[in-house]
Amino acid sequence: MPLKVGRGAEAPPFLVMDVIAAANARAAALPPGAPGVIRMEVGQPGTGAPRGAAEAAIRALRAGAPLGYTEAFGLRSLRERIARHYAERYGLAVPAARIAVTVGASGAFPLAFLAAFDPGDAVAMAAPFYPPYANILTALGMRPLLLPCDAATRFQPTVAMLERLDPRPAGVIVASPCNPAGTMLAPEELAAIARWCHAEGVRLISDEIYHGLVYGEVREASAAAFSGSAVVVNSFSKYFSMTGWRVGWMVLPEDLVRPVERLAQNLFISAPHVAQVAAEAAFDCIPELEENRARYRRNRDLLLRALPAAGLDRLSPADGAFYLWADVGHLTNDSPEFCARMLREADIAATPGVDFDRERGSRFVRFSYCGPEADMAEAAERLGRWLAR
Amino acid sequence: MPLKVGRGAEAPPFLVMDVIAAANARAAALPPGAPGVIRMEVGQPGTGAPRGAAEAAIRALRAGAPLGYTEAFGLRSLRERIARHYAERYGLAVPAARIAVTVGASGAFPLAFLAAFDPGDAVAMAAPFYPPYANILTALGMRPLLLPCDAATRFQPTVAMLERLDPRPAGVIVASPCNPAGTMLAPEELAAIARWCHAEGVRLISDEIYHGLVYGEVREASAAAFSGSAVVVNSFSKYFSMTGWRVGWMVLPEDLVRPVERLAQNLFISAPHVAQVAAEAAFDCIPELEENRARYRRNRDLLLRALPAAGLDRLSPADGAFYLWADVGHLTNDSPEFCARMLREADIAATPGVDFDRERGSRFVRFSYCGPEADMAEAAERLGRWLAR
Repeated sequence: MPLKVGRGAEAPPFLVMDVIAAANARAAALPPGAPGVIRMEVGQPGTGAPRGAAEAAIRALRAGAPLGYTEAFGLRSLRERIARHYAERYGLAVPAARIAVTVGASGAFPLAFLAAFDPGDAVAMAAPFYPPYANILTALGMRPLLLPCDAATRFQPTVAMLERLDPRPAGVIVASPCNPAGTMLAPEELAAIARWCHAEGVRLISDEIYHGLVYGEVREASAAAFSGSAVVVNSFSKYFSMTGWRVGWMVLPEDLVRPVERLAQNLFISAPHVAQVAAEAAFDCIPELEENRARYRRNRDLLLRALPAAGLDRLSPADGAFYLWADVGHLTNDSPEFCARMLREADIAATPGVDFDRERGSRFVRFSYCGPEADMAEAAERLGRWLAR
Repeated sequence: MPLKVGRGAEAPPFLVMDVIAAANARAAALPPGAPGVIRMEVGQPGTGAPRGAAEAAIRALRAGAPLGYTEAFGLRSLRERIARHYAERYGLAVPAARIAVTVGASGAFPLAFLAAFDPGDAVAMAAPFYPPYANILTALGMRPLLLPCDAATRFQPTVAMLERLDPRPAGVIVASPCNPAGTMLAPEELAAIARWCHAEGVRLISDEIYHGLVYGEVREASAAAFSGSAVVVNSFSKYFSMTGWRVGWMVLPEDLVRPVERLAQNLFISAPHVAQVAAEAAFDCIPELEENRARYRRNRDLLLRALPAAGLDRLSPADGAFYLWADVGHLTNDSPEFCARMLREADIAATPGVDFDRERGSRFVRFSYCGPEADMAEAAERLGRWLAR
């Protein structure tokens, strides 16, 4: 008899993975010597870990250390270094005991959701949103509650939107800078949301994975500054350029420290040991990381000038991260078809907005600008020629 | 107002973590020069990754490869190497398309459970059992269904036990060799369970993480040989001695390939990249790994001779893995207190059975024998002196 498949597996795919596969196939099919596909679909830096981080990993491996499981919350020295980061960067006193090292930010979300919510609980978030928020919640039997946001609020939720939710949701997820829109909450807006959540007994999850990658006028702030009940999620993947190492962290509120530790012991045992060693060293690689950031900023500035000239003039304020969220509603109402055609005819890979907003994403495209500088100018030119046809 | 904590966080802690902490504290408190604490509580090899695996990681890091996200199911070359492993070791044709590289075996279980089961579903397993099976199921809202097993069936479930389950459970978890008992299912017993599950529409999850570490008369077999619907879980942590690298794999049945891939994209993105490179090289390090195994075998043989003489004569058949499951019911009915006293008075750390069997574990202790050879003889002597008091 056919065996059942769990409802948790009904989570939709993370479509960008399929776009990456299509771009790979297109690149492989091009004749030798042809100009290649420009990759603006990927959400990861083209650079590897900073040199000092890789060297620290090499030293640990050369020394023949066993590099076995660490404690569930990670190496003590790394947790202390992360705590120091909050003092140095945000002026916040966060004890190492509240820091949990995780298997990337991805590994943090199931721990946070299981520790804070029950099956059936509603968790609010802006739409557009990072797809795994909703997909992980759905897999765990929880309910994503989408708050349609647009340029009027920088694609970010507001306290007024939360006030209208009756009954109150169990939780709220915010991200600043966010993926896909690249927009931010001003510190006072984040503070207002954090305080509202705390007062209303709503658990705030603040995804701060793009902290450090900020270019505009809005300054970044951590929810840890405004709320003793918020969960902060961060990672070494973006600013620290260590995606494939799978190491991130959480700042936990006191009441979730032990629940999350129990869950982490059972679900993960620990984050990868050698990656934790490298991550600790990455804090000493700021000049190299700031060079990456300067490149993202130049890419951003170039695209913000050149894309409107090429015919894409409805761009979100590119406050941070490395994404441009482009309203292409004057050109198409079918962003997957639009992106497929752009790949086929202009050799530019970008992600259709439907991955991030199932309803209104058909008129949006996400362009990632963490690639090489030369690609950005070339992309703008190709787009201009293509759209002029 | 106080915020809620999710029911999923009620999963009990993995107690061995607390035993490790107690052993660390005891070791730190001993005067300099005193004989140290013998560590028989840990479930990981004291050795690191085999040399060739570490060297492959170093080469990749030296080359400056970005080592970003891999595909959700892992590097193509590693998946193909694992597929070849099934051909070489088991004589089985398993296509690479059915291999999913995971964040350790720990990362495989939530994917398998969410893909195969729904909240409320019962999943049967022998007791004693590896605690995270039950704790992960509980965190996901599923129900562990314990089948009390004893020496009469080598602490393994039988088809007769499954036949008595009415209604049928949604799934069955087996492990051979198993943790904590170190016992195995004979190939024909595993085949019978696999065929029964398939015929009854019950999803079999076969944890094969201790494959390769087998010493007794019972031969190891993979459930992949007997069932097209079973999920096989394995890892580089034990035989390949790579615990802290966090890389494992699954052999998936056809109907779960796409559901698990969608879940993995959302919950993990990918397993650590550099660990995947090292894992692939580990397949070429068999002589070094066989030396580890020979040491475990010598440790096992020594303890099987010496422990009965010391007063612990009710030992499970030590077919595989690196654990001895000792019935200490003639000495205590409170294994946590017994272990705490053994640590304090004999400087031997071992894990009380209650971690693995909440009901009958109060009369069992798990001894891990993956430590140094010299420690094993010393442990038997200390135990003999201590129990003779």
